Amino acid sequence: MKVFDDIVRFKDWRHKLSGPVGFVPTMGYLHEGHTALARRARSENRHVVASVFVNPTQFGPQEDLARYPRDPERDKALLKEAKVDAVLMPEAWDMYPEGFDTWIEVGGVTQRLEGALRPGHFRGVATVVAKLFGIVEPARAYFGQKDAQQLAVIRKMVADLNMNVEIVPVPTVREYDGLAMSSRNVYLDPEEREAAVVLYKALITALKRYEKGERRAGALRDEITRIIEGEPRASTDYVSVADARTLEEIEEIEGPALVSLAVLIGRTRLIDNMTLE
Amino acid sequence: MKVFDDIVRFKDWRHKLSGPVGFVPTMGYLHEGHTALARRARSENRHVVASVFVNPTQFGPQEDLARYPRDPERDKALLKEAKVDAVLMPEAWDMYPEGFDTWIEVGGVTQRLEGALRPGHFRGVATVVAKLFGIVEPARAYFGQKDAQQLAVIRKMVADLNMNVEIVPVPTVREYDGLAMSSRNVYLDPEEREAAVVLYKALITALKRYEKGERRAGALRDEITRIIEGEPRASTDYVSVADARTLEEIEEIEGPALVSLAVLIGRTRLIDNMTLE
Repeated sequence: MKVFDDIVRFKDWRHKLSGPVGFVPTMGYLHEGHTALARRARSENRHVVASVFVNPTQFGPQEDLARYPRDPERDKALLKEAKVDAVLMPEAWDMYPEGFDTWIEVGGVTQRLEGALRPGHFRGVATVVAKLFGIVEPARAYFGQKDAQQLAVIRKMVADLNMNVEIVPVPTVREYDGLAMSSRNVYLDPEEREAAVVLYKALITALKRYEKGERRAGALRDEITRIIEGEPRASTDYVSVADARTLEEIEEIEGPALVSLAVLIGRTRLIDNMTLE
Repeated sequence: MKVFDDIVRFKDWRHKLSGPVGFVPTMGYLHEGHTALARRARSENRHVVASVFVNPTQFGPQEDLARYPRDPERDKALLKEAKVDAVLMPEAWDMYPEGFDTWIEVGGVTQRLEGALRPGHFRGVATVVAKLFGIVEPARAYFGQKDAQQLAVIRKMVADLNMNVEIVPVPTVREYDGLAMSSRNVYLDPEEREAAVVLYKALITALKRYEKGERRAGALRDEITRIIEGEPRASTDYVSVADARTLEEIEEIEGPALVSLAVLIGRTRLIDNMTLE
C-alpha cells in the first residue's frame, strides 16, 4: 500500500492509473465502519484510495479538533488489511495554503439538525470533500449512513455541481449491543459506554412502533425523547423525524423518513439514525 | 458540429471521447474575442467544446438579463467556422432544476471592483463555471483577459478546490479603434460607440506613462479619470490600479499590476483593462 502525505506526488501516482478508482474519505482513528467502506470499495473498483485527514474547517471553535483522536500507524495497518491501494494523509497547510478562501455552500439540507447546531460544519465538509474529489478523481465515493445528513449534503452538492462521482451509502456498523461505531466512542468512560446504548434502544423502539403502523412523527419523537431522558447520563440535543431527502421535519410519515438524534452522554456528543421506508 | 441542448445527451457524447478537451464557455452573441478563444482551443486540444448559456445567477435583479443580446443561429455558424466539435446550449431549468441550492463562494478577489458593485455576480460565475467543468470535463478552459477579474476568480477557485483543469488566458481582441470587443457594445448608439473609445485611450495613456517610468498608482488613476471625465457621454464607475493577482489597490507599482476601469457610456456599462509588468 502506498502512503502519500504530499498532494502533488499523490496526483502523479493517480494519473498513471487507468480504470475506476473507489474512494473512502475518513478523518482517521478507523473502526469497522470505515473498513466496511474500504471493503465495499475494494469489491467495486479496480483501484481503491482512502484519505485520512482531520479537516479543521468542519470543526467549530468550541469543538473537539485539538483532542480528536488520532492513530495514523493503526489506520495504515487497517487500510492495508482492507487491501486499499493508497492512502492520502495530507497536511493541513497543503490542503488550506495561505490565502485559501473558496467555499462550497449547500443550502436547505445543511440548515437543519447538525447544521443548525454546528454552524459552518457542512460548509467545511462540502468544501473538503470537493477538494478531495478533485485530488483523487474517483468514479465512486463511499460514505457511512451513520452520518446521514452528511450523506444528504454530499449527494446534493454532487447533483447541483454536476460532479462526476457516484456516491455510495454504506450501512452503519454497530457494536455487539447496537451502539453505532464512531471514533468519538473512545471519549466514553465505562459507565458512559454502557449508557450510550440508549440511542440504539430508542431508535429500535421507534422502528418497531413504525412497523406496527404508527405514522405520527410526533408520537415517535416523544417516545424516543422519553427513552433517552430515562437514562440519567444522557440528555437529548435533538430528536428528528424528517423527510429522508430534504431532512425537513414531518407530521405524518408518508414516504421514506429519517429518524435521527443527537445525544450528550456525559460530555460526549453522539449521533445515530435509522431510515423508515 | 454537434449541437446539444440536453445535458445528459451531451455527457453521453463526451464520455465516448478520448484525449484532451478544450473548453470555451460563453454567454453567446459571439464576437471575435470568443472566436479567438475557440481558435486557441482548437490549436491545443484534440476536441473542442463551447457552451452558450446566458447564466441567470450572475445577473443582479437590476441588471440586463432579460435584454442581454442573443443570436443562437449566428453563434452556431461562428463556432462551426472556428471548427468547434460540439456546442452545449443548455436550458436554465436543466442547469438550475427546482431545489438547486449549492454555491461556490470565492473570497478576497471577488469583493473588489466588479464584485463590490455587483453583489453575487462572482458567486454566480464561479458556480456556473464549476458546473460546466463538471459537465464538460475539460483539460483546458479558455477565458478572455478582458474579464480580468473573472479570470482571477476562476483561477483562485480552481487552485483552492484542486480542480483538474488548466485555465488559459487569451488576450483581449479590439475593434479597429481600440474598443474592446464585448457583446454589450451592441447597446451603444453611433455617438456612444464613438465615445466608447475613451476607455482604450485612457488605458493606453496610463500604459505610456508607466513605460516612461511612472510608478505612483494614484497618478495613473488620476490621469485615467481625467481622460474619462473629459468625454461628455462617459462617467467613471471605478478606476483601479491593483496587484494583478489579489486585485488589492496599490500605492506604488512594484510587481505586475492590473489597470482596470468600468465606465458608463450613456446607459451602457463597459469594462476594460491592461496589465503593467
